[in-house]
Amino acid sequence: MSTTVILANGSFPQATVPRKILQNAQRIICCDGAAATLLKANLVPTAVVGDLDSLDPELKRQLQDKVVHIPEQETNDLSKAFRFCIQKKWTDNIVILGATGKREDHTLGNISLLVDFAKTSPDIKMVTDDGCFQVLLDSSTVDAIPGQQISIFAMVPDTPIQSTNLKYPLNGLIPTAWWQATLNEATDTSFTLTFPDNHPILIFKANCL
Amino acid sequence: MSTTVILANGSFPQATVPRKILQNAQRIICCDGAAATLLKANLVPTAVVGDLDSLDPELKRQLQDKVVHIPEQETNDLSKAFRFCIQKKWTDNIVILGATGKREDHTLGNISLLVDFAKTSPDIKMVTDDGCFQVLLDSSTVDAIPGQQISIFAMVPDTPIQSTNLKYPLNGLIPTAWWQATLNEATDTSFTLTFPDNHPILIFKANCL
Repeated sequence: MSTTVILANGSFPQATVPRKILQNAQRIICCDGAAATLLKANLVPTAVVGDLDSLDPELKRQLQDKVVHIPEQETNDLSKAFRFCIQKKWTDNIVILGATGKREDHTLGNISLLVDFAKTSPDIKMVTDDGCFQVLLDSSTVDAIPGQQISIFAMVPDTPIQSTNLKYPLNGLIPTAWWQATLNEATDTSFTLTFPDNHPILIFKANCL
Repeated sequence: MSTTVILANGSFPQATVPRKILQNAQRIICCDGAAATLLKANLVPTAVVGDLDSLDPELKRQLQDKVVHIPEQETNDLSKAFRFCIQKKWTDNIVILGATGKREDHTLGNISLLVDFAKTSPDIKMVTDDGCFQVLLDSSTVDAIPGQQISIFAMVPDTPIQSTNLKYPLNGLIPTAWWQATLNEATDTSFTLTFPDNHPILIFKANCL
């Protein structure tokens, strides 16, 4: 399976799961300054995308044939890197790494961008040192490990959610705050969430394997 | 000004601003296992609140006169610590520290709890190594530093926001995703947000002083 990694400029992956994804990726698209951290880890970016305001001039020269300079300030470097992947038709198996762990407003922004990106690239994931975010656009069955902690976030208000194979069944719960459907637990090797169309759900699985 | 710190069990504060708040606090209420980290930093908790499932038995004995065991599983330790503060009438100048930086679903949950807590304790803040979250229950003027980065999150959908003294004026923007009103900038020593009643707004100020 060919994986495209987008490496954002948050905390560089430390845990085994994201490090392996990074090492085995077919291509690594760096958001701007993340290229410096990637090179320090002895890996080479396929492309470096962004407004380049956080890339050292010497590194910019060194990586010049890989640099994709997009100066507009309306969207952030993660959005620019994603658009670049779509232009190149690398739409399958995109994994975003390094998108959390620094400023919390960037973390919130990046997580919400995953939901937007999923409309173009439904299997896109965001893997962190502690787990994995993915987006369900429609009612779905999701792989899990029995006992794995699962948190569920409704991105559109008034979304009633039904579940199977969760320790605390949702039974039509309409979460009105982000904490309300967190810290659930899978009871089997998969669980199912049923909810209205066009009401994307963000899920976080702890210890993503 | 007497400050009550609630220390959650995320990343222990490293930056100068939260460390000073911790050192100068009149009292420190620890969420469960956070007591161990606090003691390692040579500070003593006023109370340790939670289901105590992440507190070492030896430490539990050592801190026994400070332990407030609340076994219910419906709410998390941060909520239990907040309720304890309210019971003690420590409602003013509550600062939550250590609430981010570990599992991202806990981070999202804890940030959203701040919004709930603000209904009882309107001046409550959450300070991280990178900035400061606070909640505006009604249209307000907020202190800032010219050039300080400001991110704004509407917690209720369909909230049109007007602003003054922001580099990118909101002009009635209704943010539909968390990233849409992030990475703005104060242009003066305060800025004003105007929005409908009962539509709380969460703001993040980078490099909170």
